[in-house]
Amino acid sequence: MARQIKIFDTTLRDGEQAPGCSMNLQDKLEVAESLARLGVDIIEAGFAIASPGDFQSVQAIARSIKGVTVASLSRALEKDIDAAWNAIRDAESPRIHTFLATSPLHMEYKLKKTPDQVYEQAVKMVAYARNLCGDVEFSLEDASRSDPAFMYRVIEGVINAGASTVNIPDTVGYAVPEEFSALIRGIKNNVPNIDKAVISVHCHNDLGLGVANSLAAAMAGADQIECTVNGLGERAGNAALEEIVMNLYTRKDYYNMTTRVDSTQIWQASKKVSKATGVRSQPNKAVVGENAFAHESGIHQHGVLANRATYEIMTPESIGLPHNKMVLGKHSGRHAFEERLVYLGHRVSEERLASLFEEFKVLADKKKTVSDRDIDALVTGSSGGIPETYKLDRFVINSGSSITATSVVRLVMKDGTRVEKVSIGDGPVDASLNAVDKIIGGSEIKLEDFSLQIVDATDTGADAQGESHIRISRDGRSWNGSGVSTDIVESTLKAYLSAINAMTFELGQEL
Amino acid sequence: MARQIKIFDTTLRDGEQAPGCSMNLQDKLEVAESLARLGVDIIEAGFAIASPGDFQSVQAIARSIKGVTVASLSRALEKDIDAAWNAIRDAESPRIHTFLATSPLHMEYKLKKTPDQVYEQAVKMVAYARNLCGDVEFSLEDASRSDPAFMYRVIEGVINAGASTVNIPDTVGYAVPEEFSALIRGIKNNVPNIDKAVISVHCHNDLGLGVANSLAAAMAGADQIECTVNGLGERAGNAALEEIVMNLYTRKDYYNMTTRVDSTQIWQASKKVSKATGVRSQPNKAVVGENAFAHESGIHQHGVLANRATYEIMTPESIGLPHNKMVLGKHSGRHAFEERLVYLGHRVSEERLASLFEEFKVLADKKKTVSDRDIDALVTGSSGGIPETYKLDRFVINSGSSITATSVVRLVMKDGTRVEKVSIGDGPVDASLNAVDKIIGGSEIKLEDFSLQIVDATDTGADAQGESHIRISRDGRSWNGSGVSTDIVESTLKAYLSAINAMTFELGQEL
Repeated sequence: MARQIKIFDTTLRDGEQAPGCSMNLQDKLEVAESLARLGVDIIEAGFAIASPGDFQSVQAIARSIKGVTVASLSRALEKDIDAAWNAIRDAESPRIHTFLATSPLHMEYKLKKTPDQVYEQAVKMVAYARNLCGDVEFSLEDASRSDPAFMYRVIEGVINAGASTVNIPDTVGYAVPEEFSALIRGIKNNVPNIDKAVISVHCHNDLGLGVANSLAAAMAGADQIECTVNGLGERAGNAALEEIVMNLYTRKDYYNMTTRVDSTQIWQASKKVSKATGVRSQPNKAVVGENAFAHESGIHQHGVLANRATYEIMTPESIGLPHNKMVLGKHSGRHAFEERLVYLGHRVSEERLASLFEEFKVLADKKKTVSDRDIDALVTGSSGGIPETYKLDRFVINSGSSITATSVVRLVMKDGTRVEKVSIGDGPVDASLNAVDKIIGGSEIKLEDFSLQIVDATDTGADAQGESHIRISRDGRSWNGSGVSTDIVESTLKAYLSAINAMTFELGQEL
Repeated sequence: MARQIKIFDTTLRDGEQAPGCSMNLQDKLEVAESLARLGVDIIEAGFAIASPGDFQSVQAIARSIKGVTVASLSRALEKDIDAAWNAIRDAESPRIHTFLATSPLHMEYKLKKTPDQVYEQAVKMVAYARNLCGDVEFSLEDASRSDPAFMYRVIEGVINAGASTVNIPDTVGYAVPEEFSALIRGIKNNVPNIDKAVISVHCHNDLGLGVANSLAAAMAGADQIECTVNGLGERAGNAALEEIVMNLYTRKDYYNMTTRVDSTQIWQASKKVSKATGVRSQPNKAVVGENAFAHESGIHQHGVLANRATYEIMTPESIGLPHNKMVLGKHSGRHAFEERLVYLGHRVSEERLASLFEEFKVLADKKKTVSDRDIDALVTGSSGGIPETYKLDRFVINSGSSITATSVVRLVMKDGTRVEKVSIGDGPVDASLNAVDKIIGGSEIKLEDFSLQIVDATDTGADAQGESHIRISRDGRSWNGSGVSTDIVESTLKAYLSAINAMTFELGQEL
């Protein structure tokens, strides 16, 4: 009988903490829904005390996502634990996740505390958390560089105080698999009450060993793995959820472990996280990269045609990758479009379906054929649940190397009125964004990032669609937006407006 | 005394084989130079028989790159081995690398041969290669799924026939570290003449374990690791060179192994490969990703300020990451500019320095400050050693959502004449590329890929530079180009022309 490993997803906490990966409330809710559909056991929804926005999003996820445990991180401090509890208390299954560092380096330089003080604080704060919540996880930060004997003592203490999960993080990605599995075995053999708690691991990828360390720890007896979709996270990120799951799935003969995750939902979850953060995986990313299932060389293609197993240990279908490039066109009806959406893993409301179908018809008029990637882009590029406070009506640009770029942009405002402004700029995109700023009074908005890629690498004709990603910030908070069009100025304007609409929605809700 | 592991780099063979990663001759030469500077032991320069272009580039690298062994891959066939030998014979230290599959699946479905036939062919072809070249490596393709007893027999046979390196590839990325190290130990214990050859490993990353498997094999006795810069390669790629090297460097206490690689050259090599292939690493890529050394969360920043080691196991300096953002401006002189180029790892000729400095002055006029990233982009975006057959003179675009986009482009031709054409298109970029096609008669050129990113994520003002990457193809061959400008239409036009100039140069040389 295969042992079941709990998957603790921290995309919304450790992943979101990475530079350029911050998500807005709506995006976080969509990612959480996606994770629930994927079948993870625990969603770490955020770090409630970090900011009012964090608190709000942890609470919104705790209140709306069902069938999964929702956790908030908190330092081992009363006010942190209170905030965590207040954010998650309405969840179907809430968990407080509190942590304190146990390595000499962290205790001396960061905490400025003795081991005895750390022990006391850990035990006291776990007891405090346990009084609020029946499910408490304690993490020994920088465990892989901690003194094992001290760790055993802390683990025994926090389990006695009520922790039902103890997490052993390789916080700085320093461990190697053999060493890390020995650490887990040491805990199992030396902590008297260890059978009263689940051992968890949380591995960073600084040396590219996050997944290997997690799996080695599971072989040594860890029953929970903390990971993130696309391997996002601080620095080089965390162990990638999709790699952990597909290792256990593909090499079940070796591991004899399983998870609750439905692997065919991996693709949609990966795309959703990419869209929400604006961070795309590299083409050679394992499992979810563009090339992960592509066979380029003649020898490989020959082999795959003879027998797929020669060069393919997983099928694209096993991760839910849309393989069947059924093509839609201008004569495709609403039913065919809806079927395709469902096939691609997009579940949308009737209302949204109607607006997407309209967009599809406009696109099909411009493009001879509409591919699965185009449809994906249509969905991810559309406004989702966010009201379109500002909508692009039309624009004209005039630009060149020897003239000053100008752009005339007309927006439809929320009340239906049309406002048009002209602006100059350094190139047509800059001029266009300046014109938008003039209309909405957006002089405080700062552009943080901008990128553009072709939607479908197999379709690069004149009518190919470009997908623009933009990140903006204001007062230290940031929002992503994306837009698709066959015209890159238009896709960029749409991306800018979608980020602005997300900002307006979120700030408006707070007022 | 630390054991020295040989680093066999196959960026130019396995890496270049990946979809979208093909490089032109000039790019391959620059990457090979970069690898030699990095200090790898062996450069696999290509697969000589694959095409005349492959043969030519293997030969060019064999003839010009010194201080390193240059290898060509070849199937275990006389004509392949002949081609490999002819391509590398002029190298200072040539190696023939020949391979044949040994797994039941590959032998039955791909080779349609019995194990005895495979054994005979392997031994015969190694002997054939050894008659030509003193350094022969033999790979047992799909070794990790082969019958160990059969492998032992093949390995013994090819060593007797003259192979001085036997490579054990995990061709499909199926292995797990413990299993893979047991395989290597099995070979050491069961092949009687194994002490006459170096054991090599070549691990793919389909399940995210390429680096872990390589290191486990080294611990078990392998003395050569095959890997690629940025982990490029078929499907999810190969074990990443930078991760292998930094594991051995950072955890020398555990591995007690070393390499000849100068880790401070990792950053430049990574950038060079990104530029040549147009494939950027994701921000959370270990060692070379944008975020690998970034500390976002407040807790981490606090820790790093107290003591860098709290959250940093490697320094940015150890991989040669330019940390000191010394800023240049319009008043910076040629000397300051040159110093900065050297600091950033760019070694350029006097002639190229002059032209780069001119470009720098133009940029400094547009931008208040010129960052290290801007300078990097200037170098990677410039034409390098490729003659500018076509050069952008000026352009004017007229575009918008309700009008048909037009672009007037004027190019300076090789002979100094100026030619100007106008074209319509689907958006300003499409119209501009169409205008170029009209001027150069480029109707057979196909656009394969297009992307755009901001050069410096910390500098996103109106005067921020965008970097465009374009890949074009013609008759099944492809070329990359990149261009930078504060105007995205201009950067894209420059990228397109740089790809066209690379194509013209390479095709022209062949005529």
